[in-house]
Amino acid sequence: MKKQNPKLALTMGDPAGVGPEVVVGAWPFLFNDPLKRTNSQEESCGINLSSNSNKETKRDFPTCRPFVFGHPTILQKAIQLRNLPLELETISLESVAKVADHYFDRFGPTRIPCVNCCDDSVLGIHEGQIDPIAGEAAFNCLNRAIDLALDQTVDGIVTAPLHKKSLNLAGHNFPGHTEILASRCAVDDYAMLLYLGSQPNIASESGLAVVHVTLHTAMRNVFQQITQEGVLEKSHLIRDFMRKIKGEEPKIGVCALNCHNGEEGLFGDEEIKTIRPAVEQAQKEGLLIEGPFPSDTLMVDAKNGRFDGIVAMIHDQGHIAIKLLGMHKAVNITLGLPIIRTSVAHGTAFDRAWQGTAEVSSLVEAVRVAVLLNKS
Amino acid sequence: MKKQNPKLALTMGDPAGVGPEVVVGAWPFLFNDPLKRTNSQEESCGINLSSNSNKETKRDFPTCRPFVFGHPTILQKAIQLRNLPLELETISLESVAKVADHYFDRFGPTRIPCVNCCDDSVLGIHEGQIDPIAGEAAFNCLNRAIDLALDQTVDGIVTAPLHKKSLNLAGHNFPGHTEILASRCAVDDYAMLLYLGSQPNIASESGLAVVHVTLHTAMRNVFQQITQEGVLEKSHLIRDFMRKIKGEEPKIGVCALNCHNGEEGLFGDEEIKTIRPAVEQAQKEGLLIEGPFPSDTLMVDAKNGRFDGIVAMIHDQGHIAIKLLGMHKAVNITLGLPIIRTSVAHGTAFDRAWQGTAEVSSLVEAVRVAVLLNKS
Repeated sequence: MKKQNPKLALTMGDPAGVGPEVVVGAWPFLFNDPLKRTNSQEESCGINLSSNSNKETKRDFPTCRPFVFGHPTILQKAIQLRNLPLELETISLESVAKVADHYFDRFGPTRIPCVNCCDDSVLGIHEGQIDPIAGEAAFNCLNRAIDLALDQTVDGIVTAPLHKKSLNLAGHNFPGHTEILASRCAVDDYAMLLYLGSQPNIASESGLAVVHVTLHTAMRNVFQQITQEGVLEKSHLIRDFMRKIKGEEPKIGVCALNCHNGEEGLFGDEEIKTIRPAVEQAQKEGLLIEGPFPSDTLMVDAKNGRFDGIVAMIHDQGHIAIKLLGMHKAVNITLGLPIIRTSVAHGTAFDRAWQGTAEVSSLVEAVRVAVLLNKS
Repeated sequence: MKKQNPKLALTMGDPAGVGPEVVVGAWPFLFNDPLKRTNSQEESCGINLSSNSNKETKRDFPTCRPFVFGHPTILQKAIQLRNLPLELETISLESVAKVADHYFDRFGPTRIPCVNCCDDSVLGIHEGQIDPIAGEAAFNCLNRAIDLALDQTVDGIVTAPLHKKSLNLAGHNFPGHTEILASRCAVDDYAMLLYLGSQPNIASESGLAVVHVTLHTAMRNVFQQITQEGVLEKSHLIRDFMRKIKGEEPKIGVCALNCHNGEEGLFGDEEIKTIRPAVEQAQKEGLLIEGPFPSDTLMVDAKNGRFDGIVAMIHDQGHIAIKLLGMHKAVNITLGLPIIRTSVAHGTAFDRAWQGTAEVSSLVEAVRVAVLLNKS
């Protein structure tokens, strides 16, 4: 289902966090040749697209039609904070489909279509603070975006961060975006993937992805959660993802759970009993996959270009590596949903919110990946 | 016990691996202004001391008197392989003390004193292959070095890598150097520390160290091995180490075991029940220590200079970070011994051995750290 020029819903996230300023700061970078932007403009947004190897991002950003789902007054405040030459026009949820048909007549690098998803109570919140009103606003923005993605009015969702506590205080007991999306889409088999695009410290030109077999759980629970089926399923998910990004069969490496790859059973048998059989099954099913390997050397091999994708057993294996390699450029992608969803990999950063200095690279990358997933 | 100009035993490690070529390749870099070396010489050894921020290493390498513990014919072969302008002179174990008194009259950047610790059967081994004869040779070199360190003839040991299987086939059932050293020194409380010196991608000028509360064990066993006493003891060990390196009180960060720092008990309670109380106790005892923190963001904070030392809960937390930040420059240090011992952080690399191209940076750094530990 290849879609050129996809329609994307960008949610503003928790309005007390960095979401609004990141969305408007990223906006000019979501179009080809936007504003004839200069290096100093890039620097003022905490982004430097021209100096990294990913020249394509600057010269030829894949075309898309983004819509911001948020509150227009909040977003206008963020535009003023960043002193950006942007205008904002509020449109109704119902008009998105019609507006999209002649998007570039009205909108583009200097003019944002904003779908108002919140009531005005959100204008009373305090910057950088936990607040159920802010949590409710973020929840509403996401749900309106999901509505339009499920009925195929938009082709994907790109999310700015929400705050779990504000969300929970608003009465929505989810750990985060991913679980809300899984619930709304009624899927059980999904996975969170971290992706880092091409950049100087990674050898592979198609970047590096990491998927996690276990994620948000206590370390004591990972032993029962790591199954042959789980490793196999996650291997297929990351292979399908990186094949879309790379345009050819990707090379996948699988982490051991135990140090030194279990040292042939001396330091645990999960590698022998569970992970290796799953890798062998995946090989039979045609994947270019190897492992398990000790996670520390595997991450270095991946950095050096031997692998395009990593299957990690636990949260911190993948997160330590991706955050050290590219803290600000990482993208979070939910695999296994019937809709396309990408996200920034950072949080609300309450301590740095509404200063107008938040990095926008992660959101720019998240949009780029959402477009690529639509094209393949 | 400050020692200027310390006497160091450099073991050649497993002769089938990269040890011998690394020892002779590193040799010219262990002295001030050695061979008036050029950048091209540095490059031929896989080292580039002049381009990194650690200028001191080139301009003013701390003075030491190194002795190589190995087999002279093996080392001579490595000298020829690397085409180095080095001479080798065999001396007896008994003469080390005497030779040391007038070391620079006979030895220095162009002439190596070699203590022969192996019989000639080692000359029949094959490069890059597991062999009990090679394991026995590596074991003997280490033990002679330990003999002289325990009787204080030398002031420290710096080891090249041995191969565990060759060692075990030779009848010595140890997982590696560290356990042999602990056994010979009759200590139970010891720890392996990884250290990465000052380099461009680390903000702190005194480098970054990581110590592990649990190390070579199955993941299933870490829960019983992570104790308040263990976290406290390791915190003191890394603080003492980094205080020597930094010359002032270091800032220590402590990792959580579970992802997201256990999410206030939702993802495990080791942070609440064990790690946090240990950190609070360490603070009471005067350490500049904070934590626990999620290990992924803590590693990024450490890279950015917020911490000088990290207390990791499991092997891969520390190893993924240090190997990604500086694979070839990391140094392995055994803390808690009555003698000083540093080591390269890489293995025998049988697949790349005896090609004359092995990186020597890790051994140069290991010697530098051994000298610094003697000075403080």
